Amino acid sequence: MEERSDDADRAGPLSGVMVLDLSRVLAGPYATMMLAELGARVVKVEAPGVGDDSRQIGPFKEGESAYFASINRGKESIALDLKAAGDRVIFEALLARADVLVENFRPGVMARLGYGWEVLRARHPRLVYAAASGFGQTGPEAARPAYDMIVQAMGGVMSVTGHEGGPPTRVGTSIGDITAGLFTVIGVQAALWHRERTGVGQLVDVAMLDCQIAILENAIARYAVSGVAPGPLGARHPSITPFAAYACADGHIVIAAGNDGLWATLLGVLGAETLANDARFLSNALRTEHAELVAEALEARLRERPCAHWLAVLEAAGVPCGPLQDVAQALNHPQVRARNMVIGTAFPGGAPLLAAGNPVKLSAHADPATRPPAPVLDGDRAAILAELGL
Amino acid sequence: MEERSDDADRAGPLSGVMVLDLSRVLAGPYATMMLAELGARVVKVEAPGVGDDSRQIGPFKEGESAYFASINRGKESIALDLKAAGDRVIFEALLARADVLVENFRPGVMARLGYGWEVLRARHPRLVYAAASGFGQTGPEAARPAYDMIVQAMGGVMSVTGHEGGPPTRVGTSIGDITAGLFTVIGVQAALWHRERTGVGQLVDVAMLDCQIAILENAIARYAVSGVAPGPLGARHPSITPFAAYACADGHIVIAAGNDGLWATLLGVLGAETLANDARFLSNALRTEHAELVAEALEARLRERPCAHWLAVLEAAGVPCGPLQDVAQALNHPQVRARNMVIGTAFPGGAPLLAAGNPVKLSAHADPATRPPAPVLDGDRAAILAELGL
Repeated sequence: MEERSDDADRAGPLSGVMVLDLSRVLAGPYATMMLAELGARVVKVEAPGVGDDSRQIGPFKEGESAYFASINRGKESIALDLKAAGDRVIFEALLARADVLVENFRPGVMARLGYGWEVLRARHPRLVYAAASGFGQTGPEAARPAYDMIVQAMGGVMSVTGHEGGPPTRVGTSIGDITAGLFTVIGVQAALWHRERTGVGQLVDVAMLDCQIAILENAIARYAVSGVAPGPLGARHPSITPFAAYACADGHIVIAAGNDGLWATLLGVLGAETLANDARFLSNALRTEHAELVAEALEARLRERPCAHWLAVLEAAGVPCGPLQDVAQALNHPQVRARNMVIGTAFPGGAPLLAAGNPVKLSAHADPATRPPAPVLDGDRAAILAELGL
Repeated sequence: MEERSDDADRAGPLSGVMVLDLSRVLAGPYATMMLAELGARVVKVEAPGVGDDSRQIGPFKEGESAYFASINRGKESIALDLKAAGDRVIFEALLARADVLVENFRPGVMARLGYGWEVLRARHPRLVYAAASGFGQTGPEAARPAYDMIVQAMGGVMSVTGHEGGPPTRVGTSIGDITAGLFTVIGVQAALWHRERTGVGQLVDVAMLDCQIAILENAIARYAVSGVAPGPLGARHPSITPFAAYACADGHIVIAAGNDGLWATLLGVLGAETLANDARFLSNALRTEHAELVAEALEARLRERPCAHWLAVLEAAGVPCGPLQDVAQALNHPQVRARNMVIGTAFPGGAPLLAAGNPVKLSAHADPATRPPAPVLDGDRAAILAELGL
């Protein structure tokens, strides 16, 4: 953006904030990736020998995990055995300098290491302590292990995703972890803000299961009003019609005609004006009640021509629509490229890697097209020890 | 949590922050709901007569939208015609007091009203201006209309959700809007932090499409390594096995046995120890290559007993697992209740309404079991005008 070029301070807004990161795999590392994107320094503390478990999770390229590399770009790494006296000295020296600690162990693990929130709060009253866990630090099931798949299933998202009568369907990306990561970032920033005013840090306790409840949105509202748990809705909106994926001659497109005006325009584009007077389709409520009939009526026309034709004429008429794109098409979409949403980073070994950019575009800060690589396990040990004078 | 009771300052961390909210429907209102949850004051500026479009979107109870009420709880409402001189005076007086402006119009709408970022930046240099839009403020397709369904389709999430060969499948909750809302909160907090250090606000530009790219996670890594766009994976993890929904006698459960030790334990629980030596299942990589055979082998045992039996014995053995719960079951789950994730709020008319709680649990701040109601359209006009001396 033009206004970016005349600002003096181009580093991220959180530059100067130091994050000590004990987290592994996804929820915590996604949170610290975003904190790094915002300019924070992230020092990743990994288990000696193996490091973050996600170093062993595919896909791999020449033995290195692309999954690990994409989420951990730009972080520093030091391998510490938190049960070994010498490494505990290093960890405690890092803690004394940290603004934020992020961990995603099961509740109790940090306390058994002697680094529970109550202990650290007493020693480091300014520390923001963020714990991202499966079920949270409190409650009868706090100690249960959780993964994305489990909270998608337990939190209800799986029950509203998929097709009626069909098999269970997981959201194809780990939104159980990712939403927990995002809420953790929100909590960390709120706690930093509070610390600026009061001088005191606090515990940020985010549970993956809680986050699934927080994103249920319309499904909760429907249950709250009707007392009936909603089922899966395929590829349509629960209360707006037409607002779904519809079949054309060579594939599907999405049409989102959310009001009476767009409905009329859509019918005009399809040459189906006679439907405008159909008593079953006179309002959004009626169209939603008869959503399958709406789909049949629209698809009777749409199947006559290919997706590209319909997208062009619908766009020209101002009817919101879009193509179903696979990941390759999405990453190469001109708008996605223009927004710098595909950035270049690198595996720890130096091989280049494409990854998702930062969707938070800030006018006062740079949005570079590349990021530093993900760290080699323990790769920053010498520099960190020198900095600590150890 | 115990430590909450001895803190003096129980108001949210963002108390004292004033948010002027022009946003409608979901992405923007979800962001300002979270800002309100964190203690900010949110003044919702609505179009006279109809207000936020989501007041007309179901589900309804006695004519009031539960969808609107759940997302707009605790906000104030004033109806202003931003093209009318008198209302513009009120809006500008509010702007002068606001820390944050949130809008989710299509790019260009605010500029045509005379309230574009460049104009407001000059008048209110401390203002944080957050624009959540479908495609962003920049790029060749910035002006296109977008809805959740469209960005789920264009951003690639729909391409990895569902079952191979099956129909298109939308994530059953509006993650296109919700993730944009969450990234907007992250951007607003980062910009407020930056303002504390520099005295200067900035533009926070968040696009729903960008946010879909940002959550593709493992799917991007797979594409980056292989050059092949990944397809839908049903209800299993792309690179960990067994990590999926599996059929028991009376339904499905999720099992997440992500390493060799848990695999061995799982086989023991199922009485299927002989599989431990099966050459096709010796490592996670091999099990993922043969994921369908793994499912067949496990389900041959699992189908002999009901879900409750297997959940009990798997939990006892320490194998991560969980039930598939519908929205009613999820909201009534003891852990969800214990974490205060179902709160009481109210329709604008006063009728009670259940809604999702705040998943960001902060030890220094209250997490009440109730929230103030969503506002009547223009319901706070008199109080706001009195406050402004107008």
